[in-house]
Amino acid sequence: VIHSIGSPGELARRPATLEQRERMLGVAARVLAQRGFERARLRDVAEAAGVSIGLLQNYFESRDAMLEEAFSWMCEQLIARWRSHSDLQADPWQRIVGLVDQLTNEPDPIAHSATWVEFCSSAARHRKLRPSVAKVCDTWRRILIEAVEEGTASGQFEPCLPARDIADTINAEVDGLHMALAVQANLMTTGRFRHLALTVASRLIGRRP
Amino acid sequence: VIHSIGSPGELARRPATLEQRERMLGVAARVLAQRGFERARLRDVAEAAGVSIGLLQNYFESRDAMLEEAFSWMCEQLIARWRSHSDLQADPWQRIVGLVDQLTNEPDPIAHSATWVEFCSSAARHRKLRPSVAKVCDTWRRILIEAVEEGTASGQFEPCLPARDIADTINAEVDGLHMALAVQANLMTTGRFRHLALTVASRLIGRRP
Repeated sequence: VIHSIGSPGELARRPATLEQRERMLGVAARVLAQRGFERARLRDVAEAAGVSIGLLQNYFESRDAMLEEAFSWMCEQLIARWRSHSDLQADPWQRIVGLVDQLTNEPDPIAHSATWVEFCSSAARHRKLRPSVAKVCDTWRRILIEAVEEGTASGQFEPCLPARDIADTINAEVDGLHMALAVQANLMTTGRFRHLALTVASRLIGRRP
Repeated sequence: VIHSIGSPGELARRPATLEQRERMLGVAARVLAQRGFERARLRDVAEAAGVSIGLLQNYFESRDAMLEEAFSWMCEQLIARWRSHSDLQADPWQRIVGLVDQLTNEPDPIAHSATWVEFCSSAARHRKLRPSVAKVCDTWRRILIEAVEEGTASGQFEPCLPARDIADTINAEVDGLHMALAVQANLMTTGRFRHLALTVASRLIGRRP
């Protein structure tokens, strides 16, 4: 055991292994989004990743452990994307616009909406998944609260409600628009999604022209 | 066959049969809400209803047919409840308050929210379920549009947006609050649900004091 640690074979294999594990988490997250938490099987992930079930079992303790990790991995990806985006945008209003644009500019926004609704639905049923969803919601919340407070301090915004209420309201509005887009209710389109989300945000924060 | 139609036994059995079918739809809808569309099995419904799988199969052509009908039945129940409630309330603002109160006064609001999110998630995956969800959304939409138009005509409201946009925005807000309540994100409570939904509605319709 000891001598193998420093062997060149080990060293060469390790990064590839970590990379492959990450790749499989990505595949598992995709299967999860398509099939839902209860229906996603080890077999589906193995087939989609082009590996054996045995190999998957080497990486993950169980089906549930794999899917929970994939769920959390996917949520972390979303969080990283939003954080890096909002760090780049100095103007608080453009930061809010950018959050919404990221959603409506998804390559397949309806599928993305369906995935998010599926994730929330899974988290409603499985308590273990809730912290990941809560972390995503909390990231949006923090970004929004910060933007509202900055815009208020600089005089760009004149909000009619506490920043926390505005953040939770915009959050809920966007989630509900996801639901409408996912089920294709009320003739929802990405254009209308963007329009309604930004109109509500603009009204609540009292954006000055 | 002909003589059996008028027989007292048949007459006595018929209403009971319709009642039982309805009862089983109610049980199926409950199972559907708990397990999700994909995981709900004939066996679960049979067990929950205290009947045999064979009896269920007498009433419904297949598992899918039963669940689709239960889904649609549940949506019709929701629609009937909202319609009858809004027909009773003459004041347009109180009609909107009443819609929200009906949601937050549910005996188990978190479970109710989880069911609605699960329904939307199922409808996102199964095209056949979408018309039922769309009908529920459309009912809310109509009630809200009517309330906004009435309140505007009477001078109670001074809306900042077209009635259609306000209706879709309130709809999305309420759906998103359902999601937050279902996953217990952002410390959502029914009190906060009510507060945020009515604050947004009040702001958008420009309710006069």
